[in-house]
Amino acid sequence: MAEANAFRRYLAEHRARHLDELSEWLRIPSISTLPEHAPDMAKAAEWAAGQMRAVGLEHVAVMPTGGHPVVYGDWLHAPGRPTLLVYGHYDVQPADPLELWETPPFTPVLRDGKLFARGSSDDKGQIFMHLKAVEALAAVDGHPPINLKFIVEGEEECASENLQRFIRAEAERLRCDVAAVSDNPLLGPDTPSLCESLRGIATLEIILRTGTGDLHSGLYGGSAPNALHELCALVARLHDEQGRVAVPGFYDGVRPLTPAERAAYAALPFDEAAFAAEVGAPALTGEQGYTVVERIWRRPTLELNGVYGGFEGAGTKTVIPCVAHAKISCRLVPDQDPDKIADLVAAHARRLCPPTASVEVELQGGGHPAMTPRDLPAMRAAAAAMAEAYGKAPVFAGMGGSIPVVPMLQRDLGAPVVLIGFGLNGEHFHAPNEFFTLSNFDRGLLTLCLFYQGLAATSPSVR
Amino acid sequence: MAEANAFRRYLAEHRARHLDELSEWLRIPSISTLPEHAPDMAKAAEWAAGQMRAVGLEHVAVMPTGGHPVVYGDWLHAPGRPTLLVYGHYDVQPADPLELWETPPFTPVLRDGKLFARGSSDDKGQIFMHLKAVEALAAVDGHPPINLKFIVEGEEECASENLQRFIRAEAERLRCDVAAVSDNPLLGPDTPSLCESLRGIATLEIILRTGTGDLHSGLYGGSAPNALHELCALVARLHDEQGRVAVPGFYDGVRPLTPAERAAYAALPFDEAAFAAEVGAPALTGEQGYTVVERIWRRPTLELNGVYGGFEGAGTKTVIPCVAHAKISCRLVPDQDPDKIADLVAAHARRLCPPTASVEVELQGGGHPAMTPRDLPAMRAAAAAMAEAYGKAPVFAGMGGSIPVVPMLQRDLGAPVVLIGFGLNGEHFHAPNEFFTLSNFDRGLLTLCLFYQGLAATSPSVR
Repeated sequence: MAEANAFRRYLAEHRARHLDELSEWLRIPSISTLPEHAPDMAKAAEWAAGQMRAVGLEHVAVMPTGGHPVVYGDWLHAPGRPTLLVYGHYDVQPADPLELWETPPFTPVLRDGKLFARGSSDDKGQIFMHLKAVEALAAVDGHPPINLKFIVEGEEECASENLQRFIRAEAERLRCDVAAVSDNPLLGPDTPSLCESLRGIATLEIILRTGTGDLHSGLYGGSAPNALHELCALVARLHDEQGRVAVPGFYDGVRPLTPAERAAYAALPFDEAAFAAEVGAPALTGEQGYTVVERIWRRPTLELNGVYGGFEGAGTKTVIPCVAHAKISCRLVPDQDPDKIADLVAAHARRLCPPTASVEVELQGGGHPAMTPRDLPAMRAAAAAMAEAYGKAPVFAGMGGSIPVVPMLQRDLGAPVVLIGFGLNGEHFHAPNEFFTLSNFDRGLLTLCLFYQGLAATSPSVR
Repeated sequence: MAEANAFRRYLAEHRARHLDELSEWLRIPSISTLPEHAPDMAKAAEWAAGQMRAVGLEHVAVMPTGGHPVVYGDWLHAPGRPTLLVYGHYDVQPADPLELWETPPFTPVLRDGKLFARGSSDDKGQIFMHLKAVEALAAVDGHPPINLKFIVEGEEECASENLQRFIRAEAERLRCDVAAVSDNPLLGPDTPSLCESLRGIATLEIILRTGTGDLHSGLYGGSAPNALHELCALVARLHDEQGRVAVPGFYDGVRPLTPAERAAYAALPFDEAAFAAEVGAPALTGEQGYTVVERIWRRPTLELNGVYGGFEGAGTKTVIPCVAHAKISCRLVPDQDPDKIADLVAAHARRLCPPTASVEVELQGGGHPAMTPRDLPAMRAAAAAMAEAYGKAPVFAGMGGSIPVVPMLQRDLGAPVVLIGFGLNGEHFHAPNEFFTLSNFDRGLLTLCLFYQGLAATSPSVR
């Protein structure tokens, strides 16, 4: 197998063409949430299929789902070697507010070592790198060193609504030894990292009623219960004085942090001042006894995403509201179960409901947390590749958000998932002026070539 | 002066014409809040002016204000006798939803002893009765027994916005010994009553911020403060476990209930079960140690009229909101001062604000509470008149709501206000199918004739 320098040379030689090709894809406004972009979605999917064929993948197909199609391709001619499933998405976020873009969102522009365009970092740029790694491996070595399967979906920006069904229906076709997802940021511009944990989520809505109609606060005030009072009092009791979630059983499934993990987190170059500045609050908050990093990566939360009831217009309306709503999401960590957590919160809300009110709880779904052990052969291979490409060993990071596909791949295909992303926080993923930092495009592409090579040396029984 | 029976005869003889005249007024859709009804407002004001002239009032004038005009008229030929100022309003609530009216809102219809039309009870019907009392007194006795001043405003349904300025500017013209307002309900269909207390009001909005932008609950959740958490926790602390308002100083100005008042309230035929049914909650609530009647009439409250922040749409949005609002109104009792109470609540909200947030408070105005001693000669005269007309002595009631004009008359003219209304709860004042119960039209009209007569026997120094 080729040395790193052979890939460095190949990638440097073909860099201009690669960026031209990526720009072609970025010009297609594949916004999955806007119905008027349906033709662009189809076009972007076809473009991905064409690229797959161009780099040598086989069985390429634009596969229908209940929504936007999944683009599939594979190369399965490395008997005895592991099979890697690569996931990415070709859909992008809406671009508005357009007036805040310095250059148009779907006109890719190179500026200051950055490629500006909607989707450049999230996620076309990153999945494109995987395709170019296949191209480079085939060019330098004659063929890829491992078996490959690609799925590129079109609904990541609308919660991967049809992906779960697709993965279950196509489980046999998608069978693999390990999966790779590049849809996440590095810990910092000079901090190569691999993500080892993702939080899951459970969402629900509490609807509290104290009557069937709003009442006049003069005629009834003092004796009629007020749904907003009762709801605020209820949700105020969902946390204790120590910032812990006060729902009985909430922490039962939480995997404790090991001393080694805490030491590793403490050693990370995590910039707490920069984090606080992003938050913008007079002070940070959170569960006592944990660092910021631990709180946002490895501790579960319960957040009020929305509370409303009564009058919201300008001025005053002296009403006693009869109904009030609280929209809640819990971020979950291994090994909490989203359904169980939603049930616990619902049961607690019912328990806290005073005799003057009734509570109804709507469960609104969730996703599992995920964790990939850092000593897994595939993780070691990824780390070694990244160390070579970046000249520096990566750290292991967590992510407080959820990437729905990750637990799906883990649970439905039984595959460990290597989260090997090359974006950066600050690249405006869902905002105007999204860009991708080209130094990470270059080093990331090299990382992927070496990662695929490294996987070849692992046993298929890695799973 | 004539006996009650002389008035009974006169009123019975002229009843049909009286109802025809009232119906004429009710046909004018004088909705003060809808700009397209401005011509109707002018027409309704002119109609009132015409009626004033017809019953013998002088100096009748449709007087401009910053908004809809006030109709004024007087009769000042009873030297040595008291001067009564009568207040009413010719504007009505909007009629929508129209489809819920059994007969059109501005086509008065007599049905089952009730006169159906928007404004029949609130307040055209009631102020019309005062005009017809003047007519009857003049017809039976030759002239009214006391000096009279009438003001009929056009902005009661939009918070009497220009009335305060009008009363202050015209204080000399409006000078009187006592005022009468008939814009309130009787305690029950078979319970004649005079209202001796009204609550005041103070309104404000708390705006709590934890940052300058909403945050991703995955990436920041666990360490970033949540404006909704902080606001709900804050407002949950505005009451204590005993249902009392937990704002320091809130009760300082509250006039304690005397044992006699408590005994009188306890003896009232107040139907707590019916009240609870109207409220519709699984249980009533309120300040410990007080009855329902005491709570809604004579104890102050703090109500959340609206709370909102974050996401309110269908489904979920996993956001940490950076701003949350609470709209609050306090119902006040003598001798609380609305400005002082608003300041106390604002100061307490600022005090409760945690270090992770900042609080801004918008004061949104208020009105004073009012009380008219039941042993005042004018109140005794009203009670005696009502006892004669209803065959039963009235009880003294309170009202938990506010009638802005009452404290204005008390404070700016120094006049005690007799609240002598003949409506009934259940007459759908602000709802479809408003009606006025004609038995109260008849008995009320007689009451007013006798009340004016009774006032003649009191000294002008009643004030």
